[in-house]
Amino acid sequence: MTIAHELNPNARILMGPGPSDVHPRVLKAMATPMIGHLDPQFVQIMDEVKQMLRELFRTKNELTFAVSGPGSAGMEICFVNLLEPGDQALVCVNGVFGNRMCENVERCGAKLIRVDAPWGKPIDPADVKKALATCEPKLVAIVHAETSTGVLQPLEEISQLVHDAGALFLVDAVTSLGGMDVRVDEWGIDAVYSGTQKCLSAPPGLSPVSFNERALKVITNRKTKVQSWFLDINLIHSYWSGAKRTYHHTAPVSMVYSLHEALRLVFEEGLEPRFARHRRLHEKLRDGLEELGFEFVVDPQYRLPSLNSVKIPAGLDDAAIRSRLLNEYNIEIGAGLGDFAGKVWRIGLMGCSCTENHINMLLSALKTIMKEK
Amino acid sequence: MTIAHELNPNARILMGPGPSDVHPRVLKAMATPMIGHLDPQFVQIMDEVKQMLRELFRTKNELTFAVSGPGSAGMEICFVNLLEPGDQALVCVNGVFGNRMCENVERCGAKLIRVDAPWGKPIDPADVKKALATCEPKLVAIVHAETSTGVLQPLEEISQLVHDAGALFLVDAVTSLGGMDVRVDEWGIDAVYSGTQKCLSAPPGLSPVSFNERALKVITNRKTKVQSWFLDINLIHSYWSGAKRTYHHTAPVSMVYSLHEALRLVFEEGLEPRFARHRRLHEKLRDGLEELGFEFVVDPQYRLPSLNSVKIPAGLDDAAIRSRLLNEYNIEIGAGLGDFAGKVWRIGLMGCSCTENHINMLLSALKTIMKEK
Repeated sequence: MTIAHELNPNARILMGPGPSDVHPRVLKAMATPMIGHLDPQFVQIMDEVKQMLRELFRTKNELTFAVSGPGSAGMEICFVNLLEPGDQALVCVNGVFGNRMCENVERCGAKLIRVDAPWGKPIDPADVKKALATCEPKLVAIVHAETSTGVLQPLEEISQLVHDAGALFLVDAVTSLGGMDVRVDEWGIDAVYSGTQKCLSAPPGLSPVSFNERALKVITNRKTKVQSWFLDINLIHSYWSGAKRTYHHTAPVSMVYSLHEALRLVFEEGLEPRFARHRRLHEKLRDGLEELGFEFVVDPQYRLPSLNSVKIPAGLDDAAIRSRLLNEYNIEIGAGLGDFAGKVWRIGLMGCSCTENHINMLLSALKTIMKEK
Repeated sequence: MTIAHELNPNARILMGPGPSDVHPRVLKAMATPMIGHLDPQFVQIMDEVKQMLRELFRTKNELTFAVSGPGSAGMEICFVNLLEPGDQALVCVNGVFGNRMCENVERCGAKLIRVDAPWGKPIDPADVKKALATCEPKLVAIVHAETSTGVLQPLEEISQLVHDAGALFLVDAVTSLGGMDVRVDEWGIDAVYSGTQKCLSAPPGLSPVSFNERALKVITNRKTKVQSWFLDINLIHSYWSGAKRTYHHTAPVSMVYSLHEALRLVFEEGLEPRFARHRRLHEKLRDGLEELGFEFVVDPQYRLPSLNSVKIPAGLDDAAIRSRLLNEYNIEIGAGLGDFAGKVWRIGLMGCSCTENHINMLLSALKTIMKEK
């Protein structure tokens, strides 16, 4: 057999929907020597990660940890633990990830109620209110930062409606956490999941989650077993928490190292300065893109700083230009997904990829390519 | 908030049930710059990983890849894809991981039939034959290398019985792959899963799997949707295979880098020399342990070279000695699990942890500690 060559990928400039550029200190952290996943020294690292995640989620929730899988596993851990067959779940859908939530609900054997908004628009609280009058959902799920469209969803009004209806409020914060405020306790979020490869600028592979006491009570009082053994919080809880840790699965030690270092970088910068950086550079990118003739998909007040969706101007060849950006400039931007395929580009400004230089590189390259066309 | 310190764990000598020591080249590979998970250069890396895994599993199966989660996710991907509610599944149980398989079967809504053997003994093919006469299982599942007991299960005779009964043969090769032969095609294994943190000496976080055409047909012809969206092979298939890769989840890029490098090391050494090293050093360790008065749990012909289970001699304090090994010598060995808790130690000789020096370090330290007691 021919043995594959040593890895030697190009040094890319990652400005798509994630992964984003990873800080050299985070890359280096993964080379920290391996230790056992039940080693007291690793337990301490887990505890530090939990504590930093709590600060980041602005929560006191004890049950705050990193799921040993990517964001999709984070989404799934929420649905399979909170829902039982026959439950009702209301899902707000205005993009790919809302649709994926619906898939999760159905695969749990729960009854799905949808509230839709057009792609690129936020969910209207009035529509949630109307839907809540017709059903009794156990939970209402919504995407805070829709990576497929670039919409930032205001959460507080909907949270109030959800709690008035006696339901749990479940939030997807994959593309917001680390790039803007996610106030779990203040906003009445009962369960939340995120990813590491977006605004946290760690490699993909873990999903930070947090559950409050209300959500945990639902999980511990289930009548049926969680359909996933791997994602059963009743079992994971004593692996990530408590004085004596009980073996469940083997945590991805090096990934936890990477998240630990990425979180240290977040707090060295400070949350407010970090969020301000994302907002300020989003505006710079916006100005530059508009100057080049691009139009944003999302209305200004609902735009995510971390994920900028722009319409591809008529006459520009989507795939050809993205290829040139990648092959000639090593710059990755995101294609449109689903309804937006071929029509929209998604430009990420996340974590370490959110710098003046990134914006300058992208705008200069785009300008050159668009002139040549 | 107080920011956690930079990571600085002790350099451990990992001789437990996994993770095992990771080669510096593998640690370094994780610091390879991040690239997009749909980047053509990453697609090529995925293809190389698939090809090396095929060689390692000794299979031609096209559907051979690494699940984006630890071994427990690998176990779960097999059960949730192959079983539907109401199906029958026969599980062979002689340790913790057979029990975990039973949990998986029940959580799929399938009917469980068990064939048990005492902990520390292999499954008797005659018992499988007897059980098969009383049921019509869709699959029969068995652990090749029971990490909780150190039993190496012969597979060929049971495989024949399973196929005669028209069932699929599902094998857990978590602690065997990379340390001894796992001949998927020759042994008639229809589906198999493993882990990276055992004899492959990569960090935990991925689960190599392989499915043959027969298993894939069962998956594509399901009447119901797979209960896990994250682990649905009907969706993952076109993410890991084919000319055009379709986004499903985000693969843990740095973990895939680590597996790529670990597999390169495996093939640089060669499979036969690697397996011979594990056998030879197992014998050296055995001689040394027996000289110190330890007795093996498993009969010689069923002993795993990679996981050595020994009875803790009367008068030795289990926890105290393991603590001293860890704190004074930085050596990790494994405690007993389940029925064997407090009675058995599990000493791993896996991948990079399988060297003369490891054995000498452990035996010398044990000798000193046992003399002092």
